[in-house]
Amino acid sequence: MTASRNKIINDPVYGFITIDHPLLLKIISHPYYQRLRRIYQMAFAHLVYPGAVHSRLHHSLGAYHLMCEAIAVLKNKGVRITAEEELATKIAILLHDIGHGPYSHALEHVLVENVRHEQISISIMQLLNEEFGGKLDMALEIFRNIYSKKFLYQLISGQLDVDRMDYLNRDSFFTGVSEGVIGYDRIIKMLTVHEGKLMVEEKAIYSIEKFLVARRLMYWQVYLHKTVVSAEKMLIKIIERAKFLLASGKEVRASSPILDFYLRYKTNSSEPYLEKFYLLDDYDVMSSVKNWIFDDDPVLSILCESLINRRLLKSHLQANPYDEMRVKELKQEVAERLNISEEDAAYLVFTGETSNTTYDPSDERIHILFKDGHVKDISEVDNALIHQALARPVKKFYICHYNEPGEG
Amino acid sequence: MTASRNKIINDPVYGFITIDHPLLLKIISHPYYQRLRRIYQMAFAHLVYPGAVHSRLHHSLGAYHLMCEAIAVLKNKGVRITAEEELATKIAILLHDIGHGPYSHALEHVLVENVRHEQISISIMQLLNEEFGGKLDMALEIFRNIYSKKFLYQLISGQLDVDRMDYLNRDSFFTGVSEGVIGYDRIIKMLTVHEGKLMVEEKAIYSIEKFLVARRLMYWQVYLHKTVVSAEKMLIKIIERAKFLLASGKEVRASSPILDFYLRYKTNSSEPYLEKFYLLDDYDVMSSVKNWIFDDDPVLSILCESLINRRLLKSHLQANPYDEMRVKELKQEVAERLNISEEDAAYLVFTGETSNTTYDPSDERIHILFKDGHVKDISEVDNALIHQALARPVKKFYICHYNEPGEG
Amino acid sequence: MTASRNKIINDPVYGFITIDHPLLLKIISHPYYQRLRRIYQMAFAHLVYPGAVHSRLHHSLGAYHLMCEAIAVLKNKGVRITAEEELATKIAILLHDIGHGPYSHALEHVLVENVRHEQISISIMQLLNEEFGGKLDMALEIFRNIYSKKFLYQLISGQLDVDRMDYLNRDSFFTGVSEGVIGYDRIIKMLTVHEGKLMVEEKAIYSIEKFLVARRLMYWQVYLHKTVVSAEKMLIKIIERAKFLLASGKEVRASSPILDFYLRYKTNSSEPYLEKFYLLDDYDVMSSVKNWIFDDDPVLSILCESLINRRLLKSHLQANPYDEMRVKELKQEVAERLNISEEDAAYLVFTGETSNTTYDPSDERIHILFKDGHVKDISEVDNALIHQALARPVKKFYICHYNEPGEG
Amino acid sequence: MTASRNKIINDPVYGFITIDHPLLLKIISHPYYQRLRRIYQMAFAHLVYPGAVHSRLHHSLGAYHLMCEAIAVLKNKGVRITAEEELATKIAILLHDIGHGPYSHALEHVLVENVRHEQISISIMQLLNEEFGGKLDMALEIFRNIYSKKFLYQLISGQLDVDRMDYLNRDSFFTGVSEGVIGYDRIIKMLTVHEGKLMVEEKAIYSIEKFLVARRLMYWQVYLHKTVVSAEKMLIKIIERAKFLLASGKEVRASSPILDFYLRYKTNSSEPYLEKFYLLDDYDVMSSVKNWIFDDDPVLSILCESLINRRLLKSHLQANPYDEMRVKELKQEVAERLNISEEDAAYLVFTGETSNTTYDPSDERIHILFKDGHVKDISEVDNALIHQALARPVKKFYICHYNEPGEG
Repeated sequence: MTASRNKIINDPVYGFITIDHPLLLKIISHPYYQRLRRIYQMAFAHLVYPGAVHSRLHHSLGAYHLMCEAIAVLKNKGVRITAEEELATKIAILLHDIGHGPYSHALEHVLVENVRHEQISISIMQLLNEEFGGKLDMALEIFRNIYSKKFLYQLISGQLDVDRMDYLNRDSFFTGVSEGVIGYDRIIKMLTVHEGKLMVEEKAIYSIEKFLVARRLMYWQVYLHKTVVSAEKMLIKIIERAKFLLASGKEVRASSPILDFYLRYKTNSSEPYLEKFYLLDDYDVMSSVKNWIFDDDPVLSILCESLINRRLLKSHLQANPYDEMRVKELKQEVAERLNISEEDAAYLVFTGETSNTTYDPSDERIHILFKDGHVKDISEVDNALIHQALARPVKKFYICHYNEPGEG
Repeated sequence: MTASRNKIINDPVYGFITIDHPLLLKIISHPYYQRLRRIYQMAFAHLVYPGAVHSRLHHSLGAYHLMCEAIAVLKNKGVRITAEEELATKIAILLHDIGHGPYSHALEHVLVENVRHEQISISIMQLLNEEFGGKLDMALEIFRNIYSKKFLYQLISGQLDVDRMDYLNRDSFFTGVSEGVIGYDRIIKMLTVHEGKLMVEEKAIYSIEKFLVARRLMYWQVYLHKTVVSAEKMLIKIIERAKFLLASGKEVRASSPILDFYLRYKTNSSEPYLEKFYLLDDYDVMSSVKNWIFDDDPVLSILCESLINRRLLKSHLQANPYDEMRVKELKQEVAERLNISEEDAAYLVFTGETSNTTYDPSDERIHILFKDGHVKDISEVDNALIHQALARPVKKFYICHYNEPGEG
Repeated sequence: MTASRNKIINDPVYGFITIDHPLLLKIISHPYYQRLRRIYQMAFAHLVYPGAVHSRLHHSLGAYHLMCEAIAVLKNKGVRITAEEELATKIAILLHDIGHGPYSHALEHVLVENVRHEQISISIMQLLNEEFGGKLDMALEIFRNIYSKKFLYQLISGQLDVDRMDYLNRDSFFTGVSEGVIGYDRIIKMLTVHEGKLMVEEKAIYSIEKFLVARRLMYWQVYLHKTVVSAEKMLIKIIERAKFLLASGKEVRASSPILDFYLRYKTNSSEPYLEKFYLLDDYDVMSSVKNWIFDDDPVLSILCESLINRRLLKSHLQANPYDEMRVKELKQEVAERLNISEEDAAYLVFTGETSNTTYDPSDERIHILFKDGHVKDISEVDNALIHQALARPVKKFYICHYNEPGEG
Repeated sequence: MTASRNKIINDPVYGFITIDHPLLLKIISHPYYQRLRRIYQMAFAHLVYPGAVHSRLHHSLGAYHLMCEAIAVLKNKGVRITAEEELATKIAILLHDIGHGPYSHALEHVLVENVRHEQISISIMQLLNEEFGGKLDMALEIFRNIYSKKFLYQLISGQLDVDRMDYLNRDSFFTGVSEGVIGYDRIIKMLTVHEGKLMVEEKAIYSIEKFLVARRLMYWQVYLHKTVVSAEKMLIKIIERAKFLLASGKEVRASSPILDFYLRYKTNSSEPYLEKFYLLDDYDVMSSVKNWIFDDDPVLSILCESLINRRLLKSHLQANPYDEMRVKELKQEVAERLNISEEDAAYLVFTGETSNTTYDPSDERIHILFKDGHVKDISEVDNALIHQALARPVKKFYICHYNEPGEG
């Protein structure tokens, strides 16, 4: 009898995802990985796109699936990838976001200050590596880009990595923004390795053009949608306010001891903070926000009630900075209306900037391998759409401000 | 200038959902409705199907969308539906699940004992009606099936209502179980009203056959999947255990005052309990479960840790009841291993039954209108697939029991 | 430099089809294979479902794609399939329909009497084998089911072969009949080989149930749709009439010498007829039909004009045979109205029967491999839906008859 | 009893298309319209994308469907469209391509010289109008852009018309080139009328950006794919050769009298040629091509055999014109190898140019209506992607030349 040794997982985006190694199954079953179920991939995008409630676990599985496809394509083209390297690369992509905290990017640098999620990912991977007796050594080397075959790292993190391909695709799918759909399967089939570097064959140019445009569209239509920006900035203000109140000596309790720990944590503390990180997820944050609706600090209470009931701060994006005088006026109005200080009003009226660099040539390059064997960076290709229009970062300025309910 | 007066919402299932009346917009914006964002439509199905994380709000919007289509089809066929009735029916479907609590069906009757969610829905609709100055009167009449045009109620609750059509379709979509896809658009286009009753035209027979089969498949493959059953029953045991401990005088705190209220609530209390219900959602429950991992009651702690880390009780479904002696033995083993009483072990080893009646003729009938004007119930149609096989309820017995971690 | 050695073909159904061996490419490029572009997969189904215009070439490529997936799954489960066997099986599926003539099943046995298309397929494969120096030897053995590993043949022709899976899937896709969609990817992932036979794992039962129901639905809703039946029977009558006129000594010219040859061919002739078969396609037939609109034989002219302009004979399907007296009356009416003989009217008024056996247990069986290692035929599985309802053939009787234009 | 008075047609692209007026049904049933079934929407694109075999009839139905949606959106926004105008606009879009001949654009100006298909469409619409007793009067006025409400014409023919939206969408769908998918539903929902002109609301900017990019991609990846270009130019050469031979006094017979008529037709003839046009379709052309494989003119025979067996002339596209000397050399080589004159070799070695202007501002403009009521042409919007990169026409030069079979 020949039974299936693999586990298959239904995925509305790709049909089925096959987990084809026992170590991968063990990693997925680990509480550190299961925690990712409780973190929204897109934070508050679901306030505008109600379908966008998929989890970071789901994205990780999707990126893993694309990695399986990419590796199969490369091996089929004669690129040498050993079984050990293959497994290590799959582990690395499965765990690439293991360090994300509640509400992903929205709260990065806010709960745990000055630490990027990639750094936390490495820490957690090291904990897992100890637990698994060093079986994650090579995965860690690849993830930290110190492994000899650099193209394996490029598959995980680069301009055309499977992480981006999955999130663009998956986010399009769950938001229902069909314009964000990318031809990921075509791009993957066109991947190749030349002189040790990951590149794409010439035939993929239009697909990449489309990929860059789709990414741009997703930024403006989804990721930086003014309502989404407002909700995410409000959550930051909520956490900042709670920390501020605590620092001022007021007793503010989170709904869980673990979030209490992080709210009270001092960056100069010697206490290890990563060890508890794997306990933290969206539930700690959102159930605290729900409780704080009844806090007696009016600023905290207003922010929490507004966020929970989706009565968000009014927001606006524009090309130029907002007039400081006008912002100050708004703060004063709000301070007066709510009978709070101007400093406190700054939690309810604030500005900032946000940007999208679709393709940053200083970052990582997309190399095109032409049929005759020469290589060009995509920015050098004779394609006005790509090198003229897309390469420039686009910065926008936002304002969020409190409005009397019913003011519209 | 002609601007859009409607709001459109992206939906991956139907493309766009159009909200075409200001009152509908106000209802959707209300905190009672927004609460549905924080309730999983499919409770723990996402533990097997990671995409199944859509919210009850999303389902309500989807059912509303199908209602818009159904009404347009009927009006186009000459069925008289006034503008007021149309709006009322749309309100009724938007709010049909407003009474669902955390984890939907999983916790029904557990947190609030002996009250069906439909009853709570009516209570909340009445609260809203007061707030909206009686504008929901007709919606309430339709929802309570006391309005004269019975077919409007049948669109909301019947064998072929838009509720079922949306949830089958949406649940298939988000789980990725493509076999559950139903030809909802064809069925809707075939809806008609004859002698005051909702029915379908003859041409829809194969689509309905398929609809019933898809529903059956979704039951066995998804809704009653043994892993999903295990997780949902575990959550019930957790709540029961917490209540039991509280009743025994032990101090068990939920993560939120609102959940504390319901855990402590006594059914013979005179205190109104529905008024706070609109505050309750998945976050209260799941963050409490997370905290209780650290409770000193071993039963509560084990159940919570197992659920959070997806190390679920082993479960099994079969056609016959489980041997009581074997169940007793299992309880004793667990009691011994964990050094707890046999009564306590009953939270970790338990049995029950679960059933699926795809088409229950005693319930509501599916009427088929033939071209020559006569009407048949679908069970009378000469279709072996439907009347022989599908009409019978299928009951299965489940067992869930604790296993030492690593026992597999 | 590592360039792609494979050819990839865009397919709206599966995304991409990869042709991964030079011999496969050569076969696809051969005129015998290219001819399949010019044969509708679904004959006249496009008269009801305008999207159903895909070619037999497209279906063959799709079945090949599923074969690639099935072989990968089986190999991954440890089933021994050598590289030579793999290539041979892929060749066999690519060529499984190479013997189909114009309008596929509709004209089978009509143009070339008493020869099944499988027989012609073998003949053409033998011609190709000579041309390719014997490289198709093993493919021929597999296709003729004389190769030792019988499961390879079962993948090509059996109750769960990739042929059926592709055509159900592809036909659903192109007709837009979403209810016909099958969970082919799940079934393929559940395929296994046990004691030399192809079977499916237990977990696939609901998918197979759904597969059988979808097939049934496609039969009644699409393949045996009364309008489709009418058009196909009319084409048969056209060819029969042309042959009859020729046999009566009348000069009837097809639009091409090749079709002339087949119309005039006598079954007792010693002239080889298969050698020219690869020249024949839908274009020969349909352009002849167009020309015959202007033929002076009223029967031929009426049939051709009706078919071309989609003013088809009225048709009806029912459970019982049609009353012979009524049919005779109809013929007499038509004979009188058109001033033709009753014999001639038989081309414009005729009856017949058509049937669908979804799962014929006498044919090939679907074996289910249970986890504990025992095997059951699906008809023995405790599944009322399958063994009670689906196993019985369903026969229907049709009538097609001429109506005065405008009679409706 | 309320029965359906509409006809619904399954469409894989949009689900269902509803025909909601008896006059529309009559037009669709007319032989002139049914002829469009026998014309490929994408001529020879299926030689590269095997799914691209949809018919011009299918596209017309699809454009009609989008027109229904567009009109519903506009009416809902308060734009005044009478029932008569609505019906007329739907008729106009149904018939907008009625004048297309065999192989659509590929043979335009070749079979019927110096007449654009729009002109033939008008002629055929006039014939139909006579037959339908003037009921198409307003449809004709709209189609000829002499009706007062110009926006109705813009819906049929403009930068954002439903014709383009359908063909981009449908062609993407059937080719499987997912990158060509456009967010047509979003664009349609954003349509509005301002000062009598069709425009889109501001929110649609990113969707239009995407639309223009998708169109560009479809041009280069599909419509102007070198293999497709080669096949289409070959067909032109075949028709030109047949005409040339006829003009030289050689007897060349088409497979049908109707094609014979057009091949022999002299532009200075007084004989009406449009009256027979409705008989002509792909079958006349392709069955003639098949027959001409056996013609004794080597040029005609080679071209026909190559096209039928997909052994196409080698083709290449580049940014600059081809060196005339090199082209002359190639012709001489071919002339020598095939033992034909250099003039004859010009049918087998030829160059030309082809171009794509995604958005031509001199043509029709896309107007954007901003929230504050002002209007901008999209080329004035601050969007580098659109006005810098897309506005410029891109011209490419092609060469097609005969290669010895097997030369590769």
